[in-house]
Amino acid sequence: MPELRKDPITGRWVIVATDRAMRPADFIREHVAPVGGHFCPFCPGHEEKTPPEVLAYRPGGGLPNSTGWTLRVVPNKFPALRVEGDLNRQGEGLYDKMNGVGAHEVVIETPDHMLTLGDLSEKQVEDVFWASRDRIVDLRKDIRLRYILVFKTHGEAAGAALEHTHSQIIALPVIPKRTLEEMEGAKRYFDYRERCIYCDMVRQEEEGGTRLILETEHYVAFCPYASRFAFETWIVPKKHSSHFESVEIPQVKNLGWMLRAVIRKIDKVLERPAYNLMIQSSPVQEGAMAHYHWHIEIIPKLTRVAGFEWGTDLYINPTPPEDAARFLREIGLV
Amino acid sequence: MPELRKDPITGRWVIVATDRAMRPADFIREHVAPVGGHFCPFCPGHEEKTPPEVLAYRPGGGLPNSTGWTLRVVPNKFPALRVEGDLNRQGEGLYDKMNGVGAHEVVIETPDHMLTLGDLSEKQVEDVFWASRDRIVDLRKDIRLRYILVFKTHGEAAGAALEHTHSQIIALPVIPKRTLEEMEGAKRYFDYRERCIYCDMVRQEEEGGTRLILETEHYVAFCPYASRFAFETWIVPKKHSSHFESVEIPQVKNLGWMLRAVIRKIDKVLERPAYNLMIQSSPVQEGAMAHYHWHIEIIPKLTRVAGFEWGTDLYINPTPPEDAARFLREIGLV
Repeated sequence: MPELRKDPITGRWVIVATDRAMRPADFIREHVAPVGGHFCPFCPGHEEKTPPEVLAYRPGGGLPNSTGWTLRVVPNKFPALRVEGDLNRQGEGLYDKMNGVGAHEVVIETPDHMLTLGDLSEKQVEDVFWASRDRIVDLRKDIRLRYILVFKTHGEAAGAALEHTHSQIIALPVIPKRTLEEMEGAKRYFDYRERCIYCDMVRQEEEGGTRLILETEHYVAFCPYASRFAFETWIVPKKHSSHFESVEIPQVKNLGWMLRAVIRKIDKVLERPAYNLMIQSSPVQEGAMAHYHWHIEIIPKLTRVAGFEWGTDLYINPTPPEDAARFLREIGLV
Repeated sequence: MPELRKDPITGRWVIVATDRAMRPADFIREHVAPVGGHFCPFCPGHEEKTPPEVLAYRPGGGLPNSTGWTLRVVPNKFPALRVEGDLNRQGEGLYDKMNGVGAHEVVIETPDHMLTLGDLSEKQVEDVFWASRDRIVDLRKDIRLRYILVFKTHGEAAGAALEHTHSQIIALPVIPKRTLEEMEGAKRYFDYRERCIYCDMVRQEEEGGTRLILETEHYVAFCPYASRFAFETWIVPKKHSSHFESVEIPQVKNLGWMLRAVIRKIDKVLERPAYNLMIQSSPVQEGAMAHYHWHIEIIPKLTRVAGFEWGTDLYINPTPPEDAARFLREIGLV
């Protein structure tokens, strides 16, 4: 009998297939591995092919936009939003619009074209988080920017246009619907129980253990109860915190290790799948919140989203999260 | 300058690219055309390969599950939900679940394997709507079933597993999140203005004309103002009606013509793309509503949904709906 599970934050229902649950080998997969051999604007020596960098780590020193970097952040050459101009909110009959003011940047995670996120060292993964934090802290000074999303599309099936491993930062003049929904859902729970729902989830997943993948000093990785997608994985900080950018040094070190470990496990179990990764955090202009809790979501791209999902926002997940977590938990790290 | 547009019903923001707007030829496309030549369980003569039919149109008469049908509805052989059993709602710590009770059926739209929806006659398209209506009227007798979605996935990129043209019906024991959101958004508008927002949209699109594709006696087809996807198309009845299944004979005839015309235009402009189609309607156990208005949504599958969209529920649409509508309006029907 299939099971209907409710996401406790958004109220979204998910159909979890239990009769003929799909195992890792059942998914038709794109094995994402860089091929190289073509011109790449993100490779060292091609610094002039991107807009001038806004941040770079050069342990050996050196001039901006020269080689010698280990990580580089540049504005997106084809940005979805632009920094210039006024918001200029206005109506159009019954509709509402505003100018697409915002920022769109690319974090080039390594100079080495042939590596993927899971191949990087712990220090390099840590640096990706530092760069994201540094950019958020800089971008939020512009008070028109109300929400900043850090995300990664890995592999063509997940929507990546360039092979060289990178993540992206988009700063928006509005708070996205999904964030509003999550904050409202978490607030409802907080109002009723006077506890953060994410803190409660961390406790239940730690104790139950069936959906747990890994646990470190500061983080828990698990497959959420109402996973929309097969092998959906969350990394949640144990200590309550509403804003990702408030992370401190020991937490970032620990997060570098954790994300690298989770990605390597996913790469092994699902044979280097395409995936989407996003950091869900609070609106940057708002103060610390007791009811919202930042976290990372990873969605391996294994199935197609079709008419049913678009029509309902209800998902059919062919792999129970307990099965997915067991595969990910049991595979070794090396 | 890109434009941010707000969906007036759900409050979802969409980034509409205006600088380098994509034209039909810019999209990498799968041209969906049946290939045939392999075993197909939906073809005439293979009736025993599907579960026994629940409805069929046999103009010449004949026994159930024999050949001679022009349209056939069968239970899905691998259903997402099952009719047997109790709902059995229960908790699991802070989570909620219930049994996956429901129905999942397939409408085989024609006996001819080599045709697509756009190739069918007006009468055949009309019959697809009649069959959907008849099945809803039958399924809603089971009061456990609260929402019924009629949808179609056309082409592999859109998620279709079988080539032979068909649509699907899923009956759910819950009201999907998307439906609740639309009903709530439409209710807010109605409470404020005492008018149906969809009726107002129909009026504005008819008068403005820039997003209009086609207009018939009973329907308007247009690209919505805050289209999430390039070439997203809606077909909305002019006369207010909350439930699709309350359509009457002249309206269904007119709808058969309209959907066929819209699909043929999409097929011509985008060279037979994969697409998703769904009928958005009201919960089947609820009475007629003044604020909600059933309609059809068609989403050609032209771009990939990536980390940004999953993380925010905010979409980047590379083709302004005014451009999309112009292409679809101007192409001939023959």
